[in-house]
Amino acid sequence: MPRFLLALDYGGTKLSAALTTAHAREWLALERIISPPEHNAQYEQRAMLKLARKILNGKIPAAIGISFGGPVDFARGLVLLSHHVAGWENIFLRDQWRAEFGAPVEIDNDANVAALGEFKFGAGRACASLLYVTVSTGVGGGWIVDGKILRGADGVAGEIGHTIFDPNGPLCICGRRGCVEVFASGRAIARIARERLIAHPRAESRVRELIAAEITAQAVARAAQDGDEFAQSILDDAARALGFGIGTAITLLNPERVVIGGGVSKAGEKYFAAVRVAARANCLPQMRVEIVPAALGDDAPLWGAVALAQEIAQK
Amino acid sequence: MPRFLLALDYGGTKLSAALTTAHAREWLALERIISPPEHNAQYEQRAMLKLARKILNGKIPAAIGISFGGPVDFARGLVLLSHHVAGWENIFLRDQWRAEFGAPVEIDNDANVAALGEFKFGAGRACASLLYVTVSTGVGGGWIVDGKILRGADGVAGEIGHTIFDPNGPLCICGRRGCVEVFASGRAIARIARERLIAHPRAESRVRELIAAEITAQAVARAAQDGDEFAQSILDDAARALGFGIGTAITLLNPERVVIGGGVSKAGEKYFAAVRVAARANCLPQMRVEIVPAALGDDAPLWGAVALAQEIAQK
Repeated sequence: MPRFLLALDYGGTKLSAALTTAHAREWLALERIISPPEHNAQYEQRAMLKLARKILNGKIPAAIGISFGGPVDFARGLVLLSHHVAGWENIFLRDQWRAEFGAPVEIDNDANVAALGEFKFGAGRACASLLYVTVSTGVGGGWIVDGKILRGADGVAGEIGHTIFDPNGPLCICGRRGCVEVFASGRAIARIARERLIAHPRAESRVRELIAAEITAQAVARAAQDGDEFAQSILDDAARALGFGIGTAITLLNPERVVIGGGVSKAGEKYFAAVRVAARANCLPQMRVEIVPAALGDDAPLWGAVALAQEIAQK
Repeated sequence: MPRFLLALDYGGTKLSAALTTAHAREWLALERIISPPEHNAQYEQRAMLKLARKILNGKIPAAIGISFGGPVDFARGLVLLSHHVAGWENIFLRDQWRAEFGAPVEIDNDANVAALGEFKFGAGRACASLLYVTVSTGVGGGWIVDGKILRGADGVAGEIGHTIFDPNGPLCICGRRGCVEVFASGRAIARIARERLIAHPRAESRVRELIAAEITAQAVARAAQDGDEFAQSILDDAARALGFGIGTAITLLNPERVVIGGGVSKAGEKYFAAVRVAARANCLPQMRVEIVPAALGDDAPLWGAVALAQEIAQK
């Protein structure tokens, strides 16, 4: 009988559950739902359980891997909190799922799990070490070293979004000034677009049409891909900040490859080229700078959850 | 019969060779010589062989560990060059020593080897991960992760001296501007002292007495320890730059401990306190900041070489 692996992704705004078997490279079943606004942890738990039961359809999983969009105490299987969803403070999520299906469970934060996913199944295959960077609302990161997630002494390694790009820059949610995140995240790109449109009232840009509506990083990226120079220069600056942070990370760890995922990473080849130039300029000449887009897209955390489940199913 | 381990340290300005046994924690024999000015690789090889033969005194080593003060291709046992001594370009030093005594040999650069030494025998015992930072003429670093040296894809991980502190700062030997090294190294401290004495001709400082002679970081540190405020403020600024770099490294890797060695690390408790404050200010609140002085002093590379030798002697 095949050994079924259940992969769960608590994504903040959406929930995903998928089923596969130990050696398969595709989903037997996949369910995703967008969470309603103002939802909470209890809602997410009920909804995820429903998704899981639906795709399992009576089968018993051999192991469960979980990606959570927020800080996790890996050793204790404990969710510390969610920055997006209320009610997740100090929840022993691993034990809850173990109790539900009687199967071994492993849980980690989404950046670490996505790093593992890209390493095992995506753009980091055949690498001994990699840095995974996710650029979406915020900027996060995860390390794979010697084929394993490098979690750090407090489980918070990889915070590339909170390395400093400009100590005189804007205030970050972490309380310091000028973190890479306040220049390079999706939220930052939208903010900077808004600021520059106001500061340059006569600049021509398709982004301006959007100022009445909500300006998003996605809209800026779309305008840039349509040849809008105003939008492209905003993206170039964001890429410069991100590349600076990646260059610092390369200087310190010299990884074999850097994989960039998250919504902003889809901003186009020009954006990627600018990230590479900035990273190359911020590390030593003898260090390789191999920066590639993520291969698994939004499924990276789910595939990483499969990899987590594989490790414990094999025991 | 005890298994003898031979440890060698090519330090740039001095050569050291020491002998111990597998489980001993002290030297059976130790020899050190200061190299004459303008010496070269050939001289160092002859002199080191003489030291080794003297301390071995007819014994055959079970394994040899080597620390080299310059970049090394660990996998090939190849010295790439020395920044201090001519003639070290592309020397297969591992094979030379293996041929000499018929024993297995391992060789790595001094920052990595010193990190391993502090980890196994010094200020990093009982840690799972650590960053070792050496602050002497330059600023170097080495990582221990899961009990092993983390070398990186090109063998150059740990270059904390070349993370950027101020992108508008002075030019660094690496070709970029404002690296931690140009603010925090011994060379930098001496340069800054000289510049400030010239810029502030009426400032009172004991360092001024030294301007006729050569100003060294050691002299600045001594003056600071005697209560000289001018000297202390130079050290404080150097500590701030170093702490900034260490904070960045903590943000990215979240090590259990940071161990600081090298001549400048002996600049006193005030200096250390300033490094800690700056590091704490440059990482996230949930990350530990445990920064301690090296325990093995100048012997860290030798003890690390013992640890390298142990690993291969056990095979």
